[in-house]
Amino acid sequence: MKQVVTFGEIMMRLSPPQNLRLSQAHSLDITYGGGDANVAAALAYLGMPAAHAGCFPDNAVGHAAAQHFQHHGVDMQHCVFQGQRLGLYFLEVGASLRASRIVYDRYDSAFANLQPEWFDWDKILGNAQWLHWTGITPAISATAAQATKEAIAAARRLGLTVSADVNYRRNLWQYGQRAQDVMPELVAGCDMVVCTEGDAEDLFGIKAEAGAENSFVSMSQQLVQRFPQIKQVIATRRNTQSASHERIRGLAYVEGDYYETEDFDINPVVDRIGGGDSFISGFIYGQLTYSTVTEALTFATAASALKHTISGDINLVTAAEVEHIMAGNTTGRLLR
Amino acid sequence: MKQVVTFGEIMMRLSPPQNLRLSQAHSLDITYGGGDANVAAALAYLGMPAAHAGCFPDNAVGHAAAQHFQHHGVDMQHCVFQGQRLGLYFLEVGASLRASRIVYDRYDSAFANLQPEWFDWDKILGNAQWLHWTGITPAISATAAQATKEAIAAARRLGLTVSADVNYRRNLWQYGQRAQDVMPELVAGCDMVVCTEGDAEDLFGIKAEAGAENSFVSMSQQLVQRFPQIKQVIATRRNTQSASHERIRGLAYVEGDYYETEDFDINPVVDRIGGGDSFISGFIYGQLTYSTVTEALTFATAASALKHTISGDINLVTAAEVEHIMAGNTTGRLLR
Amino acid sequence: MKQVVTFGEIMMRLSPPQNLRLSQAHSLDITYGGGDANVAAALAYLGMPAAHAGCFPDNAVGHAAAQHFQHHGVDMQHCVFQGQRLGLYFLEVGASLRASRIVYDRYDSAFANLQPEWFDWDKILGNAQWLHWTGITPAISATAAQATKEAIAAARRLGLTVSADVNYRRNLWQYGQRAQDVMPELVAGCDMVVCTEGDAEDLFGIKAEAGAENSFVSMSQQLVQRFPQIKQVIATRRNTQSASHERIRGLAYVEGDYYETEDFDINPVVDRIGGGDSFISGFIYGQLTYSTVTEALTFATAASALKHTISGDINLVTAAEVEHIMAGNTTGRLLR
Amino acid sequence: MKQVVTFGEIMMRLSPPQNLRLSQAHSLDITYGGGDANVAAALAYLGMPAAHAGCFPDNAVGHAAAQHFQHHGVDMQHCVFQGQRLGLYFLEVGASLRASRIVYDRYDSAFANLQPEWFDWDKILGNAQWLHWTGITPAISATAAQATKEAIAAARRLGLTVSADVNYRRNLWQYGQRAQDVMPELVAGCDMVVCTEGDAEDLFGIKAEAGAENSFVSMSQQLVQRFPQIKQVIATRRNTQSASHERIRGLAYVEGDYYETEDFDINPVVDRIGGGDSFISGFIYGQLTYSTVTEALTFATAASALKHTISGDINLVTAAEVEHIMAGNTTGRLLR
Amino acid sequence: MKQVVTFGEIMMRLSPPQNLRLSQAHSLDITYGGGDANVAAALAYLGMPAAHAGCFPDNAVGHAAAQHFQHHGVDMQHCVFQGQRLGLYFLEVGASLRASRIVYDRYDSAFANLQPEWFDWDKILGNAQWLHWTGITPAISATAAQATKEAIAAARRLGLTVSADVNYRRNLWQYGQRAQDVMPELVAGCDMVVCTEGDAEDLFGIKAEAGAENSFVSMSQQLVQRFPQIKQVIATRRNTQSASHERIRGLAYVEGDYYETEDFDINPVVDRIGGGDSFISGFIYGQLTYSTVTEALTFATAASALKHTISGDINLVTAAEVEHIMAGNTTGRLLR
Amino acid sequence: MKQVVTFGEIMMRLSPPQNLRLSQAHSLDITYGGGDANVAAALAYLGMPAAHAGCFPDNAVGHAAAQHFQHHGVDMQHCVFQGQRLGLYFLEVGASLRASRIVYDRYDSAFANLQPEWFDWDKILGNAQWLHWTGITPAISATAAQATKEAIAAARRLGLTVSADVNYRRNLWQYGQRAQDVMPELVAGCDMVVCTEGDAEDLFGIKAEAGAENSFVSMSQQLVQRFPQIKQVIATRRNTQSASHERIRGLAYVEGDYYETEDFDINPVVDRIGGGDSFISGFIYGQLTYSTVTEALTFATAASALKHTISGDINLVTAAEVEHIMAGNTTGRLLR
Repeated sequence: MKQVVTFGEIMMRLSPPQNLRLSQAHSLDITYGGGDANVAAALAYLGMPAAHAGCFPDNAVGHAAAQHFQHHGVDMQHCVFQGQRLGLYFLEVGASLRASRIVYDRYDSAFANLQPEWFDWDKILGNAQWLHWTGITPAISATAAQATKEAIAAARRLGLTVSADVNYRRNLWQYGQRAQDVMPELVAGCDMVVCTEGDAEDLFGIKAEAGAENSFVSMSQQLVQRFPQIKQVIATRRNTQSASHERIRGLAYVEGDYYETEDFDINPVVDRIGGGDSFISGFIYGQLTYSTVTEALTFATAASALKHTISGDINLVTAAEVEHIMAGNTTGRLLR
Repeated sequence: MKQVVTFGEIMMRLSPPQNLRLSQAHSLDITYGGGDANVAAALAYLGMPAAHAGCFPDNAVGHAAAQHFQHHGVDMQHCVFQGQRLGLYFLEVGASLRASRIVYDRYDSAFANLQPEWFDWDKILGNAQWLHWTGITPAISATAAQATKEAIAAARRLGLTVSADVNYRRNLWQYGQRAQDVMPELVAGCDMVVCTEGDAEDLFGIKAEAGAENSFVSMSQQLVQRFPQIKQVIATRRNTQSASHERIRGLAYVEGDYYETEDFDINPVVDRIGGGDSFISGFIYGQLTYSTVTEALTFATAASALKHTISGDINLVTAAEVEHIMAGNTTGRLLR
Repeated sequence: MKQVVTFGEIMMRLSPPQNLRLSQAHSLDITYGGGDANVAAALAYLGMPAAHAGCFPDNAVGHAAAQHFQHHGVDMQHCVFQGQRLGLYFLEVGASLRASRIVYDRYDSAFANLQPEWFDWDKILGNAQWLHWTGITPAISATAAQATKEAIAAARRLGLTVSADVNYRRNLWQYGQRAQDVMPELVAGCDMVVCTEGDAEDLFGIKAEAGAENSFVSMSQQLVQRFPQIKQVIATRRNTQSASHERIRGLAYVEGDYYETEDFDINPVVDRIGGGDSFISGFIYGQLTYSTVTEALTFATAASALKHTISGDINLVTAAEVEHIMAGNTTGRLLR
Repeated sequence: MKQVVTFGEIMMRLSPPQNLRLSQAHSLDITYGGGDANVAAALAYLGMPAAHAGCFPDNAVGHAAAQHFQHHGVDMQHCVFQGQRLGLYFLEVGASLRASRIVYDRYDSAFANLQPEWFDWDKILGNAQWLHWTGITPAISATAAQATKEAIAAARRLGLTVSADVNYRRNLWQYGQRAQDVMPELVAGCDMVVCTEGDAEDLFGIKAEAGAENSFVSMSQQLVQRFPQIKQVIATRRNTQSASHERIRGLAYVEGDYYETEDFDINPVVDRIGGGDSFISGFIYGQLTYSTVTEALTFATAASALKHTISGDINLVTAAEVEHIMAGNTTGRLLR
Repeated sequence: MKQVVTFGEIMMRLSPPQNLRLSQAHSLDITYGGGDANVAAALAYLGMPAAHAGCFPDNAVGHAAAQHFQHHGVDMQHCVFQGQRLGLYFLEVGASLRASRIVYDRYDSAFANLQPEWFDWDKILGNAQWLHWTGITPAISATAAQATKEAIAAARRLGLTVSADVNYRRNLWQYGQRAQDVMPELVAGCDMVVCTEGDAEDLFGIKAEAGAENSFVSMSQQLVQRFPQIKQVIATRRNTQSASHERIRGLAYVEGDYYETEDFDINPVVDRIGGGDSFISGFIYGQLTYSTVTEALTFATAASALKHTISGDINLVTAAEVEHIMAGNTTGRLLR
Repeated sequence: MKQVVTFGEIMMRLSPPQNLRLSQAHSLDITYGGGDANVAAALAYLGMPAAHAGCFPDNAVGHAAAQHFQHHGVDMQHCVFQGQRLGLYFLEVGASLRASRIVYDRYDSAFANLQPEWFDWDKILGNAQWLHWTGITPAISATAAQATKEAIAAARRLGLTVSADVNYRRNLWQYGQRAQDVMPELVAGCDMVVCTEGDAEDLFGIKAEAGAENSFVSMSQQLVQRFPQIKQVIATRRNTQSASHERIRGLAYVEGDYYETEDFDINPVVDRIGGGDSFISGFIYGQLTYSTVTEALTFATAASALKHTISGDINLVTAAEVEHIMAGNTTGRLLR
């Protein structure tokens, strides 16, 4: 089977153990993640060949980050080791009504300073069927945006499916260009996008029609009209109860039809970081495996629900485990 | 007071800490347990003399397993140290809708290879009032089944009460005999059994009558008819909400009458392994302490509920702590 | 801004990690706390100058205890290092229906053996606007009671606001005097008290009128009548669901008017110790910051709710974080 | 085989992990030990029946202490659970030229408050061949001294061998009697004593003769003359290089003859607490096992050397492991 | 560059942390290793393409073992996932004069039960330049021996260099064939072997000539005469001081000439498991990189010395780090 | 007593536990340190009032860094909270012949971006007797160099003693100015400097005279000639045995006389970071406490030796502990 390839930044995540605050911590649990690479790793765990292209400092920290994904089966041979530092962030994990908080320290990373010409997309995508990227990547630096553009162009040229999590984060766009100017061209090259009503309004000025029965459908209709390459718009609807209790459902607008899953209830949440990425990897897997959108969407949402019970950014679950949940086994009976 | 004696295999349990998956773990928490020995240890904690007979490899691992039960007050002097390996299993602890999973590695253990003649039951039971065993033991090997048979015979001869958790696990019976052929003779020697409707059907072909108001009662009536030595049939009814949230109630059919407790709600569950064993130890304690079945059953169910909040297989609670729950103190107010 | 000064004993708290029982533990997590010093530390975290006066043994344990509060910004320069031992207690943290349990080992501590003359209150309170104490302090020893009396007298003399958490613990009063004889004089010097109906009855013989619509109001009315210096009576009303799930609301009776907040739901509870202290520090902060009782009380209750999600005795939250909860953001959405 | 019985206090030991200082620690490793009980536990590990008589508070802490010794095979049935607190101490573990430091918090313990009549020595020693005690026990309180006296008297009456580690600690004698007045009568009942030249001078005014070739021999000669029941005087000679590097040899004066082992070199030292106790248990084991003093003394010293590599107070080594060292295998080659 | 391929069993290693004994441990540190796979992983770390062929149970434990090597860059695509259990062993890590001890639990593993036809050596070795195996593999089972034979035959056919660590472990050969009958044919196909005088005598009856100046040279001369394909015989000479202090030097007999390095002193030893494997990987790297035997041997020995300071079985060092030691920088000055 | 004030950057230090490499680590131990702030903290521990002026990001990470020093008694009220990130570095702790390695990630820190006008030196130094700085500070940025210059000028104006650790690190000077141009003016304002022969040559072009009996003396003579304000030149001479074994001695050139201590042997080294800083704090303490240079130098060197046994950057030792070493007690005998 051909690979799914992702492109983007991988950061070190540092968290005080056991809900401690930073001022109490004497050690930090570390893991590594990135919105795109998490998709590759989850797919590898589901049994699908996956590769990631990224850029890391050529020091012990950078190599440790890359090895973390290698551990979980991602082909990292196209990664570049150049530059000074790995982006990182500190995560205080909340509980109940106390929210988790992130302190970012990601500027001027090796990834931000990448040169587009370091990535030979024809080679990287030579054995691939799918390219996935996120809106975080073009937000990081002009060169990262340029590389994303070149990757999408190559993917289209080579006949791959292209997907994106548009994921607009206002604060990230600091290098002098506006998301509103950069993103449309990139999104135009996509077959599938994860996009919420908020993202659509912020990035493309698309608002759900006033009085629309379903704002997601309304937004999606306009989105596919604006970007005719897009055939599928998907998203999760979170009904967050507390930092420890989440309810999610999956939404999809596919070729004119609307799909929606039941709610999945997750209580307690073990780790919510990467919940969206696992939805996407689940949907990619589902698309390539099942014949109906309903199945693919249910698989994706069940996978995302499971992710909330897994520590770290990556959804370390097998396809059989997701199918077990899909089959309605959500009471967690001991499996011997 | 005379001892309660249990017989069976003790295994090492290895779990990744903090809900991690095995592929993420760099250390494993260890504890030791067995469905029968857990009963002995819980009784010792409740203040009742208890002994266990088992078989361990004569190496550092085997001795560590035995010492774990010695720590909690079980008389281990009748244990035999012979053989090569301790049975073990890996437990990935789930959360919320993710089930806990067990990978067994228990074949060819020292216990499976025991010789019946290593156990002098007249001596082992010489100071005892009660023998308890589980259906796991005769499932392990022909010699283990034979030793169980001899233990029951000796117990009957010496006038002890005999109880069993019939606990049918299809996958375990690998040594060439069928549970359906072995178990009836063993169960026939019991005064009290833990048995669910599923166990009764699988092992003895006993089905609750169609249309019976209460399937447990219907099953129990047939069971005591088939095995006239049995005076008490007990079980817990689990209403599992998720891997982290359990509701249990206790059921008993005693000399023609049916008893049932209220539900006990456990959220979150700290450790569900050994929940059934703690119900049995609670019922044995209750039988020997209280004058009514209702009290004994409530004690047993409250004890089992508490067990779900204790880490490890063994129910490390005092009688006073169980009675505190029995008295309705289930809101967990701080005790100074 | 002038300081809030607290006076009282700080103890070492030793807890088995991860809900273990003491008989299972091979290490104990340690922290330090005291009902009064916790108030000082929380205020320091909220950005208000705070100092604590106490007494510690002049050894590595005593200094570690004092440094713990220095870490969180409390001015400890008025502490005395004299005596033999630090009071301590062992805490088994429960879960669900299993209550947390405390084993105290606090007698004959350095604090209990303090000499009142070691504390020069005019100097200690010289830069202060507020003195806070708890009913635990005069319970510890005659000299501690005497020092409390002198502190209150000095505070009144210097024009400070005085508050107390009356916090009656029957078992503590072991040195030959009765709380009922000692406390009234001390409480008479207070402007604000935390007092429940139970405390009022036990300490002052004040019972809510039979048939009173609101027992807290009825009690408070009598309390302010008895002790005319008191202008504010506050308390939290706990609706404890389990050791892991708490609901609290704040109550206040201020100059004849009654105030009450909504319930705050905390599930799971990370650490309930210090929940009351954080309510008080929140109310002191609120009093000195907001113009209405409603705001102060809501701030106090939100602060206390947050405390239940923080490990250790001290409420390590900023004012902005409490205000975030006050503004209704209780679903714990990730803050980037 | 008959039991070796020990009598004395068991304390909780609390140490910051990994050489940290108390002011840096957020958890403390805990273990339990006592100079006499350590001897019982090491003997149990060597395969010799051993029992300990002591007194613990009847709370979770006291029971945990007793269970620690039960774990390692010591018969604890003669222990009494009465009183308020367990003695404890804080240990900062040094390294290299930084010495380890102890902060004691042991006064007014359950053991110190024992009543001699709680111990029925005829019953406790009924199945014993040997009684061992240390000079710490009579130092703790008048009642502890009295109980020691009664134990020795019973042992003599029942024909047991009696041994003592005289272990003079000046600071401990706080209850109003002088060691110099109490100890001689107790030591007079012993067959074997561990005693250094310093101890002999401090306790009995015995000084090695000026110009004696061997001060230990000179002291021992006078000691056996003063106390004719004593047949054996033993001691270790430490040649401490640093907190991490120890050299020890064993000395014995037995019925007029002097014995001395080679030096055993221990680098690094894992845990030096209990090094003397393991020497004594080794010598008791050696006496009851070997035919020559040389073998017994070498066994004892090798056992003590091994103890320095074991974490905790108790020498968790088998006889075969000690014999392996005795046979000269001190280079630590991997044993498969 | 073409791959170095290794073949053999990978086991889970379970060790109590911080020099604890098994009877004290409540968690076990885990890692995975195998004498051959360790060579592959070290080579990957040195920057040389490496692959491993092995067999694992198709469960979470087996996959975790394989992922451990994937993490460090070994190509695991030729591994087979079939069978029931992963071999494992318990390691108590000694210190000073206390030896480390291993308790094996490796029989009947998935690897032992492999079928030779599962390995298509022409494919596995298709992109390789070197095959390395150890004497442990043919000791495990008849099928493992057969697969080894087939691998060597294929390697010879394809023109690869073949090396072996003959590593005779008497206890392992349990399946009915003698090492003396199996090994000669396998060794006959090797170009390079690690072999000590003891191995040569036990396996091949080759004894160093009496009075030989250098027993290693004498043995090697006979070995190359017997097995003319062998061009290089290498070994390490250990001068073990204690479990914590090692001295090693490297020996080589290459085409008639003898080479020997200086001693490398390692104090303290962090982890000695895999010390030999790192010597071999170092020599393979050295052979393929340097022009002289002296350089290759010094690189190998320096690499092995470094391995003793690395936790786990695998030598996680870069070529630059080994070269830093080769250049004489053995005093461990901080590198910024 | 008046304060010693230090100025400089504090960084977070992140280390894999227990000698692991970064690619193996799943958590990182954290501490905070800076060459100048470490001096302040050690002085506070020695009982001397100390304050530090620095600049931190106004987020949870920056406040945690400042609190770390507050914990140990440093007055942090003059610190500024402005900017984006805290400088940090990763430390792999070596052992034996494997060197510890640092990966820096410190550019563009809040401290580097400080504005000199944020520091009101007349206020900061208003209650001080001493200012200490290091050569790292002016290397970080032009504004940091400017602030250093202003601090020295203010100190001179206010009559303080000024000391510096010249500590030349070539790699740090990246902002466009040369150390050789910046440092002379700053050093000219110092009364005491720590300076090695290498530093003197690199920074000031001062070479020990060829054939000088003592290169340190020769260098020092030239240094005091060049910078007449300097009265004392001190340094440690390291005779590093391995990453785990250090030998140090102290050197001083004071008003024309040369002093030198004996070697202090540290084996094993617990933590070598901050060893030089502890020498300086020891010398400052010694200068202000003792009457002779010999005593001050011995105190400083003993303090530094002790530091090597303390985890973290800061020398957490009391004056009594240093004096214990000064008195020759270097064998680490247990202190009760």
